[in-house]
Amino acid sequence: MKVEFIFVGTELLLGNIVNTNAFYLSNVCSSLGFVCYNQSVVGDNKERILETIEMSAKRSDIIILNGGLGPTEDDMTKECVCEYLNIKMNMDEDTKKAIEAYFEKKNMPLCDSNYKQALKPEGSMLLKNNNGTAPGFIIEKDGKIFILLPGPPIELENMTKDYVIPYLKTKSDGVINSVTVKMCGVCESEVENRLKDMIDRQTNPTIATYCKEGEVHVRVTAKAEDEKSAHKLLRPIVKEIKSRFGVNVYSTDDEATLESSVVDLLVANNLTVTTVESCTGGLLAGRLINVPGVSEVFKEGRITYSNKSKRKTLGIKKRIIAEHTAVSAEVAELMVKGASAFNKADVIVSVTGLAGPSSDSTNIPVGRVYIGCGVKGNVKVEEYNFAGNREKVRANAVTSALFMMRRCILEYLSESVNG
Amino acid sequence: MKVEFIFVGTELLLGNIVNTNAFYLSNVCSSLGFVCYNQSVVGDNKERILETIEMSAKRSDIIILNGGLGPTEDDMTKECVCEYLNIKMNMDEDTKKAIEAYFEKKNMPLCDSNYKQALKPEGSMLLKNNNGTAPGFIIEKDGKIFILLPGPPIELENMTKDYVIPYLKTKSDGVINSVTVKMCGVCESEVENRLKDMIDRQTNPTIATYCKEGEVHVRVTAKAEDEKSAHKLLRPIVKEIKSRFGVNVYSTDDEATLESSVVDLLVANNLTVTTVESCTGGLLAGRLINVPGVSEVFKEGRITYSNKSKRKTLGIKKRIIAEHTAVSAEVAELMVKGASAFNKADVIVSVTGLAGPSSDSTNIPVGRVYIGCGVKGNVKVEEYNFAGNREKVRANAVTSALFMMRRCILEYLSESVNG
Repeated sequence: MKVEFIFVGTELLLGNIVNTNAFYLSNVCSSLGFVCYNQSVVGDNKERILETIEMSAKRSDIIILNGGLGPTEDDMTKECVCEYLNIKMNMDEDTKKAIEAYFEKKNMPLCDSNYKQALKPEGSMLLKNNNGTAPGFIIEKDGKIFILLPGPPIELENMTKDYVIPYLKTKSDGVINSVTVKMCGVCESEVENRLKDMIDRQTNPTIATYCKEGEVHVRVTAKAEDEKSAHKLLRPIVKEIKSRFGVNVYSTDDEATLESSVVDLLVANNLTVTTVESCTGGLLAGRLINVPGVSEVFKEGRITYSNKSKRKTLGIKKRIIAEHTAVSAEVAELMVKGASAFNKADVIVSVTGLAGPSSDSTNIPVGRVYIGCGVKGNVKVEEYNFAGNREKVRANAVTSALFMMRRCILEYLSESVNG
Repeated sequence: MKVEFIFVGTELLLGNIVNTNAFYLSNVCSSLGFVCYNQSVVGDNKERILETIEMSAKRSDIIILNGGLGPTEDDMTKECVCEYLNIKMNMDEDTKKAIEAYFEKKNMPLCDSNYKQALKPEGSMLLKNNNGTAPGFIIEKDGKIFILLPGPPIELENMTKDYVIPYLKTKSDGVINSVTVKMCGVCESEVENRLKDMIDRQTNPTIATYCKEGEVHVRVTAKAEDEKSAHKLLRPIVKEIKSRFGVNVYSTDDEATLESSVVDLLVANNLTVTTVESCTGGLLAGRLINVPGVSEVFKEGRITYSNKSKRKTLGIKKRIIAEHTAVSAEVAELMVKGASAFNKADVIVSVTGLAGPSSDSTNIPVGRVYIGCGVKGNVKVEEYNFAGNREKVRANAVTSALFMMRRCILEYLSESVNG
């Protein structure tokens, strides 16, 4: 079945907001196995909305309209679909009560226009909105399906999860399942090259690579009659990709992030961690601390931004900095060693670099970063040269530090097993 | 003149990437005063691309096509436009040489298909691509204008800045100028309410509000014959908005961020700063350190995540934490006071809170955050209760801390003038 999207809202045409709903809905539909050839964006204008509905209904089976379900005069998606399909609307008493309760709880005045949202197209299925006042609707008529969904992402996404995905699954033949192999330390073109034979050979499952900030994700998608057959198709392909990229793969879990994979490793092996940051200035600790449960392993970190604080807090001698500069492998190593003065953590990570925008007096190129990582006293330092602006260099440094932590911990673990 | 966009690429239909180019180009065109009623997304399919071009050319004067200029067979935007307009393409020697040089520099093999990008539609204007191999094109024919631009955002945006905006300006009558009033500490609906009379009254300049993470931006846009008249229209409106929101407004500078406004204030008044973070775990320092030149005022910060580190590093007594818990106004205040043990900074900021996902044993609700701010020893503490998940609570805490810093510093400065 062909699905097609119509996004309604002048704010999209004016460039006031990014259409993340298009991304979300496209993802949902393609992972359910629906084909989508067209998407349209149209403003809050009756004539043009009707024109777009007519065109979409000609070429697709399922038309998903997003936005324009609000209470104001500008909101007219529901009215246009009903006019196009020539169906009436009636007041839905439950929705009316829910809207009244919503405004009472918020202690806000209710206008007549708010009742507009309680109007339900005849013969439609009403989709409850647990995060706002606009319900959604599914209308089946003359072999076509119209799905009307609210614009705010939180309302759209919850309604889609609760009602639209289960509904669409009944319209799709078979199931689509996918596994994402998440990796670091390789660029997208290299991943593509090393998987080229598989990508070319495979039609089911399909293999596609995606570039994420500092990471590459490989999505393997299988279409099958049921969940079990889909898994059977996926398993050998995922295994082969994992074996080709080894330590670069940090997870195949949908929920996992690079930082959660590091924290999981620390928690599972009872290893505490601390950070000593210069150019990243707290962002590395900030990412680690975004993982729930990190308090078991992360107690304290330091931001030693100035040379003086590297001296005072970490005991790095003035002449070392004078000789090697603060952006050096020597200083990265001494930052790790000096950190043990305030923290006996098992894993200690340091970052020092020149994030820009301009170079300083030392001739060090913008983007040069040294990362030190010590596991139980065994310290390694790596040099990186990142491109991009200050923000990009710092974000790349954080990702590289997380990946290096992962590698160093795994190495330590395998040595302790072998040793 | 009516402008319309066609985004070409199956990756958009599959939900592999967010269409940030739509946001960027819509913004550019609306700020230049062009009207846009429609946008389409279409996959890499000749028939459907041609169909979409035909429809767009019927209803708009300027058709901007984005994507599908790459070297592979899938890329066929240029070919389709030429077929629709019935014009030929010829090899452009300069582009051919540039492509050869590009591949030589990267030490990559050049395929025959790469030469496709050097084909130039007859009578078109070639737009050089300084960030990739695909040039863009502007074709004027039969009263319609076709603008073909590459898909990668960095290539698109630079080409648009360098060639497309100057070109479009010659097609627009008059100039459009806007000023963005950036504010914090108020929600969008409150801003709208307090500006309602002005928004309703104004047609030129127009006033529009936008919700940004933890901030509200009010964009005032004027259309006039020339720059000078536009500024004259903007000035009184911007002044009125600033006077209505007072300290909530942190900048009207396009380049300014909340953190840069804080750092500018510190640098201008010779005030040093340090941070002591618990739940935000380095993100506050991380945002401050993203401002170039921050090294003049930020020397060191600490992440005191565990209770033990609050005791050891900041000297907060065990019984204080036992009595008030770590998430308390008392601890936020003592974190500021304790920080002076390691740093004599003029401004000291502390953050302690419960970011979730789940509540601990203390009955403190998820989202409760205390922020302490001391300027020259005068310490204030504020309580916040944020909604959302762990990431959102932490991001909101950082924004609120930056805004509180700004207010406390301004208060200190006005007292020192008056006192």
